[in-house]
Parts: sequence; structure tokens; C-alpha cells
Amino acid sequence: MTLTPRFAVLLSGCGVYDGAEIHESVLTLLAIDRHGGTYQCFAPDVAQMHVIDHRTGQPTDETRNAMTEAARIARGAIKDIADFDPKDFDAVILPGGFGAAKTLCTFAVDGPDCTVLPSVERAIRAAHAAGLPIGALCISPVVVARVLGAVTLTIGSDAGVAEKLGAMGATHEVTTHGQVVIDQRHKVVTSPCYMLDATVSQIAEGAANAVEALYDLIHKAQGGRAAE
Amino acid sequence: MTLTPRFAVLLSGCGVYDGAEIHESVLTLLAIDRHGGTYQCFAPDVAQMHVIDHRTGQPTDETRNAMTEAARIARGAIKDIADFDPKDFDAVILPGGFGAAKTLCTFAVDGPDCTVLPSVERAIRAAHAAGLPIGALCISPVVVARVLGAVTLTIGSDAGVAEKLGAMGATHEVTTHGQVVIDQRHKVVTSPCYMLDATVSQIAEGAANAVEALYDLIHKAQGGRAAE
Repeated sequence: MTLTPRFAVLLSGCGVYDGAEIHESVLTLLAIDRHGGTYQCFAPDVAQMHVIDHRTGQPTDETRNAMTEAARIARGAIKDIADFDPKDFDAVILPGGFGAAKTLCTFAVDGPDCTVLPSVERAIRAAHAAGLPIGALCISPVVVARVLGAVTLTIGSDAGVAEKLGAMGATHEVTTHGQVVIDQRHKVVTSPCYMLDATVSQIAEGAANAVEALYDLIHKAQGGRAAE
Repeated sequence: MTLTPRFAVLLSGCGVYDGAEIHESVLTLLAIDRHGGTYQCFAPDVAQMHVIDHRTGQPTDETRNAMTEAARIARGAIKDIADFDPKDFDAVILPGGFGAAKTLCTFAVDGPDCTVLPSVERAIRAAHAAGLPIGALCISPVVVARVLGAVTLTIGSDAGVAEKLGAMGATHEVTTHGQVVIDQRHKVVTSPCYMLDATVSQIAEGAANAVEALYDLIHKAQGGRAAE
């Protein structure tokens, strides 16, 4: 049994409007560390869909690389998601932010017909095939739904997004602050975080609850394996 | 008496090597919110000293505005520090990151002879004159030392930086993870955070302890005022 669960944290940049949501990302790292786990941050080595000036909310004419920007959250310790190997980890978690729906996949533009970055799709499929639980916060459940299809998950209470998740084969459950939906069969844990109008304390609670649910799934899987 | 203490959080960009340290910033906001306070993020509306690629650690040829980048941490809710009015707040806190020593002041280049951005110096002087306690994490105590001079503070255990603080008239106290130095007379609270090789949980503890000490100073000042 792995005494120190190892988490792969998949980021998509650095900033809510064009990358990984910063509060969700940091509070995910905090929850993992506080529960005694270790983490490695990953991101795709690709240009972001675009760059948003977070002061004005408007696009700029800059180009930024999702992995280079995600390295700001990771304090430099970032790896390319193309190099993800499920053997090195016990769970995967995706914080939210529009980068999940703009760069990891094209949901923000294409809705249920979105495509997922090949490196990201490969990582999620490999993690799932290896029996690793997968967590997704905020809008990032759309990436998991597009790859795995018939999973049960939550993005909070946005009826429009929920309907699009249904069109991708997923089942949506309405939740509020701090709640998690656990799909035991597919080992997928989701929590709404900033898909709701939330305080930073509520984000900390949502991330902590999601990480705790992943720990439970890790221990259940390893207990099962140890008993074989 | 203010039932909900109001914090001004002074950021310097978004990323440890050229701006505000992201973990320290988010965990400061979390500590304020968890203690029942409110916050408003500020930053100077100036170009950063430079932009560092956080994947390679090397400077790039980009230019970025400290306030525009800080808006990523603030999820858009950022104000220019030039518009700071101490009447609207009960305390000020500066998370760390190299932006404090590269953009808020020139300590990274000029050491004890550094200059502080006029808008930042004016804000710190106004807060201090109005009796507001001031918190500073990681390397940002150098900004407070340059403005206020003979304060007692900590940046952890880096002897070189401690010596430079002495040259600016400040008194340095060695600390380790989570500890705070409280200068009761000048109402300055400091904690080393990532000036030490720390985990994200240790940063959460340092930020929470610093914010708690600021709450104590706020309540002490308001109790004194109420008793007059």
C-alpha cells in the first residue's frame, strides 16, 4: 500500500479567464499536502487558446504557453502532461478555470461537440485504465465527461452546462458549496467550486472535500488490491 | 468598532520570480476570509521590472503590467495602490514574491540603497500614520523597512538579507516556519513563508498566524479608541 498518495495535478495556465483558476489550484495543492500526500503539477505544452487581460476582461494580442504560465502556480516544478505515466501516481485532479474549457478542450467554443487535447485525453484514459481515481473541480468536469462519457458528476447548478454534459453522455447532479459528487464505479470525484458565486473559504472546503474523497477511493482500491 | 475588519492586500504581479508569490497571496486571502474579514487587492499600475519564464527561470523579452497580472490572483477585483485610502481599511498586508523586491521597490538590484515606488511608499506611510497595522510576508518586509526604518521584523534566517535590513535601520529576528515577529510599537507583523524552504501547508500556517496577529492589533487599537 502506498503510504504517501501521489497526486498528478493537471493545470491549464494561470488565471481564471484563460487558464487554471488560481485559488482552486493552490487550495488543491494545500489539501493534498495537508492530507499527507505529494503532488506533481502538469500542463500541456501548447499555446493557450488566447490571453485575457484580467483587469478588463478583454482578450489581448499576446500569446502565452499554458505550461509556462502554469509553472507560476507550480513555482517552476511543472511537467508536460504528455509525459504523464499512471504508474507514478495514485490519483489525478484537475482544478478549474476557463483554461480547462479553452485549452485542455474546446468546450467553451464547441460545447458538447468539443475535442480534447490529445496529450490530455491520453493521460485521462491511461489514468482511468490504471484504476486511478480522477478529481475535477469547477468547469473541468467537462473534460472528463468528453473523455469518459457516461460518468456521474457535478458542475454546481448551471442548467445550460448541465444539459451539455448530458449531451456528452454524462449524468449531472445539482450541488452547492463544498459538496462533492462521487461516481464510485468510474472513480470520478467532482465539486462545483467557482462555478458557484463562492468565497475563497468555500473553495478551500470544496477542494479539501474532493481531495478527501480521492484519498478514500485510493485507500479502497489499495485495500482491495492488498486483500487479493 | 469595526465588526468586519477590512484588509488591503498589496500584490506586485502574479508569480514568485517576477511578481507576487501565488501561494502566499491566495493563503493570505483565505486566512482573512476564514477570520471573518473582507479584503480588497491592490497593485501598482506600472510595468514589472521584468518577466521571468517560470519554467526555465530565465528572463523573457515580454513586458507585463504588475496590476494587470495581479488581477489574475484577484479574479479581476483589483485597484491601483495610488487610490488606497487608509480610512477604508483596518490593516494592510503584503504577501511576498520577488515582485516585492523588484517592482514595489528596487531591493533586488540596489539592496539597502533601494527606492520604493512613490505610490507604494505613500500608501504605507498613510496606513502607518492612520494607525493601521501592516503585515509583510517572505521578502516584502524589505519594502516596509525601507519606508518605516527602525522596525523589528523577520525574513526568516537569511543572514545576507538580515544584514541589509540592519543597514536600513531595521532590527531582524531569526524565525522558522509559521512564526511571526510582532513589532507592537510600529504595529508591524512579519513571517518568513517562502524565504524558507517550505511546504504549502507551512505557508498556510505562516499566513494564518500573520493575519491573526493583525486581527489582534486591530482589536487592540479599536478597544483603545472605544475606551477613550
